[in-house]
Amino acid sequence: MKAVQVVGYHRSLDMTEVPVPEVTGPHDVIVRIGGAGVCRTDLHILEGQWAEKSGVALPYTIGHENAGWVHAVGGAVTNVAEGDKVIVHPLITCGLCPACRRGDDVHCAGSLFPGIDTAGGYAEYLKTSARSVVRLDDSLEPSDVAALADAGLTAYHAAAKAARRLRPGDTCVVIGAGGLGHIGIQVLKALTAAEIVVVDRNTEAVKLAESIGADRGVVADGGHVERVLELTGGQGAETVVDFVGEGGATRDGVRMLRRAGDYHVVGYGENIDVPTIDIISAEINFIGNLVGSYTDLCELMVLAAQGRVRLHTSKYALDDFQDALDDLDAGRVRGRAILVP
Amino acid sequence: MKAVQVVGYHRSLDMTEVPVPEVTGPHDVIVRIGGAGVCRTDLHILEGQWAEKSGVALPYTIGHENAGWVHAVGGAVTNVAEGDKVIVHPLITCGLCPACRRGDDVHCAGSLFPGIDTAGGYAEYLKTSARSVVRLDDSLEPSDVAALADAGLTAYHAAAKAARRLRPGDTCVVIGAGGLGHIGIQVLKALTAAEIVVVDRNTEAVKLAESIGADRGVVADGGHVERVLELTGGQGAETVVDFVGEGGATRDGVRMLRRAGDYHVVGYGENIDVPTIDIISAEINFIGNLVGSYTDLCELMVLAAQGRVRLHTSKYALDDFQDALDDLDAGRVRGRAILVP
Amino acid sequence: MKAVQVVGYHRSLDMTEVPVPEVTGPHDVIVRIGGAGVCRTDLHILEGQWAEKSGVALPYTIGHENAGWVHAVGGAVTNVAEGDKVIVHPLITCGLCPACRRGDDVHCAGSLFPGIDTAGGYAEYLKTSARSVVRLDDSLEPSDVAALADAGLTAYHAAAKAARRLRPGDTCVVIGAGGLGHIGIQVLKALTAAEIVVVDRNTEAVKLAESIGADRGVVADGGHVERVLELTGGQGAETVVDFVGEGGATRDGVRMLRRAGDYHVVGYGENIDVPTIDIISAEINFIGNLVGSYTDLCELMVLAAQGRVRLHTSKYALDDFQDALDDLDAGRVRGRAILVP
Amino acid sequence: MKAVQVVGYHRSLDMTEVPVPEVTGPHDVIVRIGGAGVCRTDLHILEGQWAEKSGVALPYTIGHENAGWVHAVGGAVTNVAEGDKVIVHPLITCGLCPACRRGDDVHCAGSLFPGIDTAGGYAEYLKTSARSVVRLDDSLEPSDVAALADAGLTAYHAAAKAARRLRPGDTCVVIGAGGLGHIGIQVLKALTAAEIVVVDRNTEAVKLAESIGADRGVVADGGHVERVLELTGGQGAETVVDFVGEGGATRDGVRMLRRAGDYHVVGYGENIDVPTIDIISAEINFIGNLVGSYTDLCELMVLAAQGRVRLHTSKYALDDFQDALDDLDAGRVRGRAILVP
Repeated sequence: MKAVQVVGYHRSLDMTEVPVPEVTGPHDVIVRIGGAGVCRTDLHILEGQWAEKSGVALPYTIGHENAGWVHAVGGAVTNVAEGDKVIVHPLITCGLCPACRRGDDVHCAGSLFPGIDTAGGYAEYLKTSARSVVRLDDSLEPSDVAALADAGLTAYHAAAKAARRLRPGDTCVVIGAGGLGHIGIQVLKALTAAEIVVVDRNTEAVKLAESIGADRGVVADGGHVERVLELTGGQGAETVVDFVGEGGATRDGVRMLRRAGDYHVVGYGENIDVPTIDIISAEINFIGNLVGSYTDLCELMVLAAQGRVRLHTSKYALDDFQDALDDLDAGRVRGRAILVP
Repeated sequence: MKAVQVVGYHRSLDMTEVPVPEVTGPHDVIVRIGGAGVCRTDLHILEGQWAEKSGVALPYTIGHENAGWVHAVGGAVTNVAEGDKVIVHPLITCGLCPACRRGDDVHCAGSLFPGIDTAGGYAEYLKTSARSVVRLDDSLEPSDVAALADAGLTAYHAAAKAARRLRPGDTCVVIGAGGLGHIGIQVLKALTAAEIVVVDRNTEAVKLAESIGADRGVVADGGHVERVLELTGGQGAETVVDFVGEGGATRDGVRMLRRAGDYHVVGYGENIDVPTIDIISAEINFIGNLVGSYTDLCELMVLAAQGRVRLHTSKYALDDFQDALDDLDAGRVRGRAILVP
Repeated sequence: MKAVQVVGYHRSLDMTEVPVPEVTGPHDVIVRIGGAGVCRTDLHILEGQWAEKSGVALPYTIGHENAGWVHAVGGAVTNVAEGDKVIVHPLITCGLCPACRRGDDVHCAGSLFPGIDTAGGYAEYLKTSARSVVRLDDSLEPSDVAALADAGLTAYHAAAKAARRLRPGDTCVVIGAGGLGHIGIQVLKALTAAEIVVVDRNTEAVKLAESIGADRGVVADGGHVERVLELTGGQGAETVVDFVGEGGATRDGVRMLRRAGDYHVVGYGENIDVPTIDIISAEINFIGNLVGSYTDLCELMVLAAQGRVRLHTSKYALDDFQDALDDLDAGRVRGRAILVP
Repeated sequence: MKAVQVVGYHRSLDMTEVPVPEVTGPHDVIVRIGGAGVCRTDLHILEGQWAEKSGVALPYTIGHENAGWVHAVGGAVTNVAEGDKVIVHPLITCGLCPACRRGDDVHCAGSLFPGIDTAGGYAEYLKTSARSVVRLDDSLEPSDVAALADAGLTAYHAAAKAARRLRPGDTCVVIGAGGLGHIGIQVLKALTAAEIVVVDRNTEAVKLAESIGADRGVVADGGHVERVLELTGGQGAETVVDFVGEGGATRDGVRMLRRAGDYHVVGYGENIDVPTIDIISAEINFIGNLVGSYTDLCELMVLAAQGRVRLHTSKYALDDFQDALDDLDAGRVRGRAILVP
């Protein structure tokens, strides 16, 4: 089959011919790819940023946001069957460690991450596990939802966690209305009646946010902290979900937070650097957010099937993978780029 | 190997020779039995009470409270190895259904129950799953903890759930200081600072309860509801954990419950029969409790290893299974009867 | 001022002239009534059903769903000022008992209930407490929201509590699409993405339910339990909120409940009468629901101001109180009847 | 009466004669002081550290950890009566703002803090509010528990919050076994079965910690992070409660934290300065902790009455206030210094 591989850092990906993966273990699931999301992380991989962390041996196939159809299953697989339309959770988890047994599979003691540390989905077929596949509603197409598998799942996880403490009358500030924020806003809208205030540097992004559920949009033009305080009676917001985490976002974000508020860290880049006296005197919390669990992905697919979460995509043939990466790098992709084999 | 089997209802069990179970699936675990608890449910099985519900085909080996040593494992088993000392969760769960994926494996859509609907542990070896075995601390012996696998696990589950809302100054009434209540009291003592009031018809049981952690003992002699009200300033207890559930226990128990209180149903036999007007005007809750999850069993084994939960046992050779059942039926067993092959 | 009073049971209310209530305590608030809801409980009071329970001395002014404008305040009142538009929480609570200190003021150790055990709001003015008044948004009118003060608040409390455990993909069955159910459906819609299935005997009520947010309507015609099971893949619903509680509703409702499900009791009349074996083997819960707290009322007023909760009302002049009661008794009121002084 | 006052910054306190405070408002409570804790904050006040933050006008009476007997009450006080033995919550809260109404009175929109921004308890009498007094069990003496009113309450709040997610088998690291840590360890021991590992620079403090409930003591000698990792199988602790917050404690503490762990910030001084990439990739949380609520103080007094929380005190006559402050400053006080009028 065709597969797009990392053959070295600081050089281009290569399309090559590799064998179709085969079932070797009882829980193996082979997925015929219907769509593979092109993510900024893929650019970072090529820059070598993940080389040491992942320890992956080159060459290998990238692509960690995948959806498609079940092609073959191992003998112990009971939750999907050949032909099923599925989205693929980004992790392959063991199912036996304490974290997996609690349903907290994201903290599995021995997980694999296809596309990062083993063969991913820029290809015609992907090998994953029964524990990683979620059947899709008839109304959903793999190439439309593939990008929800990782970026969308992270946004869902943070927004759903934030929503648990939001009550009517509360305010939730969303910092960053890009890829993740765009999903996060729709999730918050579906799960809470809190007022959603979106802050972004980009006027167009703010407008888009307002069109998909944000109650208020604030352009981050220097006066944005004051604007949020004004919108919250001078008190700040009960919750801030920060999808940016760099360029001063956290410093501004903490100033927007009310006493006893939760600051959800999702985007990353800079440090959280806050005096402990401020943390205790306002009794605020900083909540880390990684990608969502399998159960989170099931829930997100329900929202997608209900039409409550939608994602704009730009599709490229797998052969045109380089165009997709170039467009992403140049900021020419509206929504998410998807490779379709 | 030797195995004790149900060969018909309303007649005695038979010891017979059967093949040692073998690994056939990737997650199979064969356990050499170190102890098998003899439970009142085993008597009920012989009376045919479970015949229809379980649909089991006779003959089959009973015994659902098991512990021992790992004898053999399937190819996908990573959490235990040959020779490990283990306790066996009573259910074999699928690991793939939504409940299993949330960590709520007790509500697995396709579980087996060895000893009830497939071969159990009144035998030299038992076939179970990697998802069912919990490694024991060096300080614990299989024959000492086997009875915690089901009865103890149920008590742990209810007591730990109850403890989550109990605060210092609250009162928790435990109805029934028998097998389950005995464990429940020790668990409550370990997990909460609430005052524990134990109610039982048997004066000796009440004394025993006080010796293992109950703050107050009340003999159920007709004045017990008033006594509990008196001990709680006329208000009743924030929580009642009812390990009896028959003989009028629920009617009395509800009268002991404070406004906004939780009534944990664990024992069974009679109906909860309460006017809806009383439920809403006092805003009380009735909370069902089934056996605990795999995670619950891990936690219970921690308490056992710490010496916070102890169980008195009377051991019998496997060959003497009939004596154990007879003694249980006649009320001659102190603590729990355990068969040791 | 004019006041409509209970002057005896099994006879009509009387309109009479009484003094305008005056501020005597530091937290007193006198409200000029803008609307007083006419509730089925008012009919029950006249039938003597509350005589013993409330212990109220006749004559007294009824009316427990009130909203209006602040007319005068005691010296320690800081949260409202003369002229403020307010809705009135049905209870006057002490603020000092343990329940009040936890925010659980509904279980106050010493509350009063105007309209039930002291002078209520079928009058020109009502005496209440600073702890009972919630300021209304400019967009809301007292006569439009008065009926949310008790019936609506109870529905909000139950629906919001139910929503806390509902996830996307779950089903919530609402039994009864009458006064309370009508509010409950709108609240569930605002707070959860779960599928809402409404069951009612009345075809018109089911249609109305579908128009305000129910995803599915089921007419209770004998086949409704099977219909709900069919809609939930044979498993039943994660949550049932029962606004009826009589005429067999609870027996049917429990059959609609999934394993590990929550049954919210709101309506009342019959008994919850369920075998403990069923409660433990399915591990289901029965959750009592009384009226909501002050904080619940604040949250409900947010949903009302956002237009997420709406109530149809039929307004009557205070002088026409008898027409309102007659219309209610005869089933001629669409939505809620409101007396406007 | 005698009162010890701040008459200027960077100079000594003065004992002077002032009028006994009188009841002027309906919720006022005058307490005859039985004990007033001498706290490091009192030294900081004299250094002027709180001058700007509190905005207090000099001279004023300091002392924010108070207990005694009720001397007089306002007309609306129902929870205590003259002669009652009480401990005094450090804040006077309004009872009417949204936070107070939720039971979260620590975040009251308009609280006073006697001893910090209004007259405190280094005196014979103190004016506080009905909302601030908790009746003491007969077995407790004001001068023994006074120091629990603020330092102890803060430790209780953090430890009880931490305990909510700790399960048997989890590890909780306590950084700092000084005044607050000493209480925190006892509270954790009372509320959880988790293993408690105490880290302190002082060998004696570590030994004391082990004697009051710590399962393990670790001297912070440079190898302490590795020692904690070793004690937790290389994974780190589910929870860290940091009572130090300065001198590098947070940098070390974060390294001791397991994936998905909670870092409770209680002590303060330095910054939390952690890369967002570390927060999200380990999905850890930083939880702020301020002083406890009124309900927290009630719970702490239950633990004190049960003998589960004990505090060593060194008592000084009120006239000897300067000795107490000097001893505290010089590190000569074992436990807490208490002024007794």
